[in-house]
Amino acid sequence: MSLLTVGSVAFDAIETPFGKTDKIIGGAATYISLAASYFTQKVNIVAVVGEDFPQSEISMLEEHGVNSEGLQIKQGEKSFFWSGKYHNDMNSRETLVTELNVLENFDPVVPDSYQECDYLMLGNLSPIIQRQVIERLHKRPKLIVMDTMNFWMDIALPDLLETLKVVDVLSINDEEARQLSGQYSLVKAAKKIMEMGPKILIVKKGEHGALLFKEDHVFFAPALPLEDVFDPTGAGDTFAGGFIGYLAQTHDISFENMKRAIIYGSAMASFCVEKFGTERLLNLSEKEITDRVQRFIDLVQLEGSI
Amino acid sequence: MSLLTVGSVAFDAIETPFGKTDKIIGGAATYISLAASYFTQKVNIVAVVGEDFPQSEISMLEEHGVNSEGLQIKQGEKSFFWSGKYHNDMNSRETLVTELNVLENFDPVVPDSYQECDYLMLGNLSPIIQRQVIERLHKRPKLIVMDTMNFWMDIALPDLLETLKVVDVLSINDEEARQLSGQYSLVKAAKKIMEMGPKILIVKKGEHGALLFKEDHVFFAPALPLEDVFDPTGAGDTFAGGFIGYLAQTHDISFENMKRAIIYGSAMASFCVEKFGTERLLNLSEKEITDRVQRFIDLVQLEGSI
Repeated sequence: MSLLTVGSVAFDAIETPFGKTDKIIGGAATYISLAASYFTQKVNIVAVVGEDFPQSEISMLEEHGVNSEGLQIKQGEKSFFWSGKYHNDMNSRETLVTELNVLENFDPVVPDSYQECDYLMLGNLSPIIQRQVIERLHKRPKLIVMDTMNFWMDIALPDLLETLKVVDVLSINDEEARQLSGQYSLVKAAKKIMEMGPKILIVKKGEHGALLFKEDHVFFAPALPLEDVFDPTGAGDTFAGGFIGYLAQTHDISFENMKRAIIYGSAMASFCVEKFGTERLLNLSEKEITDRVQRFIDLVQLEGSI
Repeated sequence: MSLLTVGSVAFDAIETPFGKTDKIIGGAATYISLAASYFTQKVNIVAVVGEDFPQSEISMLEEHGVNSEGLQIKQGEKSFFWSGKYHNDMNSRETLVTELNVLENFDPVVPDSYQECDYLMLGNLSPIIQRQVIERLHKRPKLIVMDTMNFWMDIALPDLLETLKVVDVLSINDEEARQLSGQYSLVKAAKKIMEMGPKILIVKKGEHGALLFKEDHVFFAPALPLEDVFDPTGAGDTFAGGFIGYLAQTHDISFENMKRAIIYGSAMASFCVEKFGTERLLNLSEKEITDRVQRFIDLVQLEGSI
């Protein structure tokens, strides 16, 4: 089934304890669509870049089956650029540079060919733009998943709350769930957030896994203990891309299937952090993904009854 | 099978965002033996208290089937006392008072009736005392599990390393695993620690669950997302008591059975944090424990294949 994703397509420059990069391709929609492309060949993106964005990177996306008709290229403007540095524990990072550039006046255009959209993934962006994309679809998708971050809670909370009302699933990290709800307990936070609109909440806990909440049900997907986390950039977006890509592939939005989708999302994120940027997501084989998913299953598997 | 535990039996005074206690009964051996008592009726303790320790609390332990023959009562001396305050997130605490008292010169005596010991749980104590208990057993137990903390890594590392050489399982938290190994990655930390003596390592991550390592195998037990953590005091000891109690009950130390034991330990710890001190551990029913264990299973359960 067709998947539409909106989000940034951008340049990142990353420094980790393992090394540093020049400007490399990044952005929420890039990671989401790459991850999703391993599950469904109908990935449409709505995004904007400047004239400095290399055609070779757009071709790379297209080779992964990503439709770039909705990718605007602004002549005379520059692409969004973020630069950050991770500390030794990889859990904290410092933003060195943020240049909004083309994102400053991003007016998301949804091509006609995108209108039959079953799954909509709202990557991290201004909640106003996220809502515009929903409004510009003639028919409501089967499922709308929204990612966001504390930045929008700090500067655009009323808009964020408006957008929350019209989405089905919210995906945020534990600190963001606490900030948004004002509750420390994630169980209480989930209850409060599910009253704000989304019927389903995903709480990402990085190296500690992810929680999936719906009504009184909760599911926990562990993170795979890794020898090294090389670069966490894009892991949350890759998780979201794997999650919604798997749902689009199986076309089943039951809670049971979302549990599986969370495992697929976690598996894709575990690849993402193994190399800089999108590198590890460029050439994954089906077997690598299946084997990785199996490791997630085995990690919590008990033989026999208890 | 019979279980011997050594550790503190003490007074605690606890302050959390939910309230504060006067001096209440605490100590590693208290939590370990109470938790284990739900699995095996042969729990022997080696510990020391002062004359200020109430007979009623010793009777309480005995009513739970805990044999107190190895509990020394030092006339004219006072029991170990710890007082601490938890902050809002419950993950950090401040020690307000530590009075070693009887623990300062604790010489652990192992009664003859304890000699046929199958399972030995070394609760958090000086590594020298932990080793003395091993040396004072005429026959090596089937399994020796050791708990310790960063305090001993700071002030008695050479002794800790000596004791590590003669235990089978080490149970510590993630920060302690990092400190002991000098590795940030828990996978790398586990490898290094398993070269120090213990063939098996348990890494407790509090609200983020626990990892069990043996050779190249790893198992992850989640923590149950709770509405409230009322008081985390003793949760790690309760976890250890449930873990070794289940092993003693089933008398099976295979890796597969240790996975189950980790779930039982986690379930017991999840009760512990629901009330102040040992309160929640005093009157648990078999059904409550079985139901709680089932919630841990359900939390990561996928229906059908993936």
